[in-house]
Amino acid sequence: MQLKGACIFGQSGGPTSVINSSAYGVFKTALESDCITRVLGAKYGIKGILNDDLIDIGLEDPKELELLLNTPSSALGSCRYKLKNASDDETDYKRILEIFKKYDVRYFFYNGGNDSMDTCNKISKYLLSKGYECRVIGVPKTIDNDLYGIDHCPGFGSAAKYIATTSAELARDAKVYDTGMVLVLECMGRNAGWLTAATAVAKFMDAEPDIISLPEVPFDMEKFLDRVEKIYKEKKYCFVAVSEGIKDSDGKFIAEYATANASKEDAFGHKQMGGVASYLAGAIKERTGAKTRGIELSLLQRCAAHCGSATDIKESFLMGCEAVKAAVSGITDKMVANERDTSAQGYKLKTKLIDLQDVANAEKKFPVEWIINDNTGISDEFFDYVLPLIEGQPDIKWEHGIPRFAQLKKVKA
Amino acid sequence: MQLKGACIFGQSGGPTSVINSSAYGVFKTALESDCITRVLGAKYGIKGILNDDLIDIGLEDPKELELLLNTPSSALGSCRYKLKNASDDETDYKRILEIFKKYDVRYFFYNGGNDSMDTCNKISKYLLSKGYECRVIGVPKTIDNDLYGIDHCPGFGSAAKYIATTSAELARDAKVYDTGMVLVLECMGRNAGWLTAATAVAKFMDAEPDIISLPEVPFDMEKFLDRVEKIYKEKKYCFVAVSEGIKDSDGKFIAEYATANASKEDAFGHKQMGGVASYLAGAIKERTGAKTRGIELSLLQRCAAHCGSATDIKESFLMGCEAVKAAVSGITDKMVANERDTSAQGYKLKTKLIDLQDVANAEKKFPVEWIINDNTGISDEFFDYVLPLIEGQPDIKWEHGIPRFAQLKKVKA
Repeated sequence: MQLKGACIFGQSGGPTSVINSSAYGVFKTALESDCITRVLGAKYGIKGILNDDLIDIGLEDPKELELLLNTPSSALGSCRYKLKNASDDETDYKRILEIFKKYDVRYFFYNGGNDSMDTCNKISKYLLSKGYECRVIGVPKTIDNDLYGIDHCPGFGSAAKYIATTSAELARDAKVYDTGMVLVLECMGRNAGWLTAATAVAKFMDAEPDIISLPEVPFDMEKFLDRVEKIYKEKKYCFVAVSEGIKDSDGKFIAEYATANASKEDAFGHKQMGGVASYLAGAIKERTGAKTRGIELSLLQRCAAHCGSATDIKESFLMGCEAVKAAVSGITDKMVANERDTSAQGYKLKTKLIDLQDVANAEKKFPVEWIINDNTGISDEFFDYVLPLIEGQPDIKWEHGIPRFAQLKKVKA
Repeated sequence: MQLKGACIFGQSGGPTSVINSSAYGVFKTALESDCITRVLGAKYGIKGILNDDLIDIGLEDPKELELLLNTPSSALGSCRYKLKNASDDETDYKRILEIFKKYDVRYFFYNGGNDSMDTCNKISKYLLSKGYECRVIGVPKTIDNDLYGIDHCPGFGSAAKYIATTSAELARDAKVYDTGMVLVLECMGRNAGWLTAATAVAKFMDAEPDIISLPEVPFDMEKFLDRVEKIYKEKKYCFVAVSEGIKDSDGKFIAEYATANASKEDAFGHKQMGGVASYLAGAIKERTGAKTRGIELSLLQRCAAHCGSATDIKESFLMGCEAVKAAVSGITDKMVANERDTSAQGYKLKTKLIDLQDVANAEKKFPVEWIINDNTGISDEFFDYVLPLIEGQPDIKWEHGIPRFAQLKKVKA
């Protein structure tokens, strides 16, 4: 059962403000493990393995490693690199095996979303097929909260907290004059509306959006403008929250109407999004004559570590720890997931393990039954779900008036 | 010397995330004063006086008033209402005097920037000319930090802290892939570059912009693109921070090239700004082929109370208190200002009073001698100036995972 060897940890896909908290969970547990002889970090995810660009985590200052808990953006660097199927092209897999052998890597931890779990799954299956003993565990992350088989994704709680906080602040600002204002706030989410739904939490400060539009339901521009106009006439104010990924009934992204960029696809075949807020703000201005503001939260929502959720930070760390513990105990080919302990009083989370192949490329959308008010509001079930996840403030170390983030030496292995 | 009567407090111009801290200073001191018989708040600034739309602050829950310390956006509502000169049109002034007499108002406190100090000055002079005894004191605020005769403006420190923090976070995010990125961050500031300069504070986390462009120096597009291209070729990364108000050598706003909206003027004859970040991001993409992100901090930078500066909050409160104390002691026709106590060890602020007419409509720009590196960097003098102002974190009360802001009853007087 006991397997001695080095481990490699890599980060993949879009970062979150707490992604390094999971990294710290992996590093700390691996460094303390008797089985793991050396802890390596892959620079820019799987690319770091292909390029033999690895750093020796054991040489980092433990205090800097601890600062990873509150350091946004993937500290090792990330990538959006899609592995071909081994049956089509084995080149990358051979190289990965070569590097694993070179460093006697027996543990591989990969931190990412559904595309990254696909990578993780492919590597795991390849190593199994070659009889190379290596325990492979995925560690989930994504602000989008769209991973299959998990109650919620590490990273979502912090992004949701930032979005809810910002919504409450913006709604107050947008009401400051009596001359009227329509505010359009755009949140990330290509196919899943979890982040945009988080704007509804501002209701606890009487600041929720009047209209919330998620990608899960088709967006009808005329109906939308009619509604904005009606609300604005009544209140001289309207707060709209939309997902970047809203689509019309033909399935065409509204962002495509907005930007020429929209036609370009990334490595995973996703279309580039953006510009929905300013596009809708323009249309609303034309229709109502109201003063409008289109605000795109852009990268801010995935890197605002200063407004992270303490619960999310703690859980992200825990998922990293659990990945190493599971691997050391003999488990492989799984992703660490979580579920609520329904027998507990109040909120309590349990970790569990699910098969990599079940989570790879699957998507968990926002439940359409939680979308109410003729597709413009969010039901109470969501608040029961989300409130525990945004609880608690991060323990940031401040220097020179700004957060002190981890500064790693990144010594080449 | 002792003058008994009611006071009116009003908020004017664009809000800041700590503007209500000054309001709380005024309210608390006025409610505790023996001379001030009633504390009234004007809804939507001077408009509330003209419309006889006043609220009785004495009827508010003291605990809610205290929450004003960390509540963003003008709690009473604000306006951008320009008073005509009394010599041209006395209508508004007569109405103001009528309302002041109706409520026996003997103290008037007005919280705003240079346009608002112009309003305050005009009212003060009119009341003096009519022999109506009323003590008028201006309370400064503006995130733009462009008020004359004051070391720094309440509101600037918090906006600067938010901008510096966000810059440090964004710079990390923008470096997450090895595929290259040009980040363009747009901060507010029509004519003064103080806010954009605050991005330079991110240097303490090795995250300062490579190019900082302020309105104080003409913007040369070709030179700018050459420089971005050079930096990007070298580092596969470039972080640009620009003020919304950058102008070319003909004095034309870059935003005017960017948006059709730019030609519209507000009540004070200012042109509407916006869209510089995405405009420059587009030009950079065209030139370099790099992946670019244009991010406009928009309203976020003036309402992010969750990332306010404790120093700014304390000082904003103090300025409100000092306004009332000065008025009660017999002073009128002044604005509360501040200066550093240079005899003190470290940073210590003293308040002072300056003539309203000196500050009205005057502007304090960013010192051009602090702009270095061929107009792309900020010198150390600025850090000595700004670091004390962004020190300390706000004492936010959190509920349901978001900040608990003041909720006033606003009972009509």
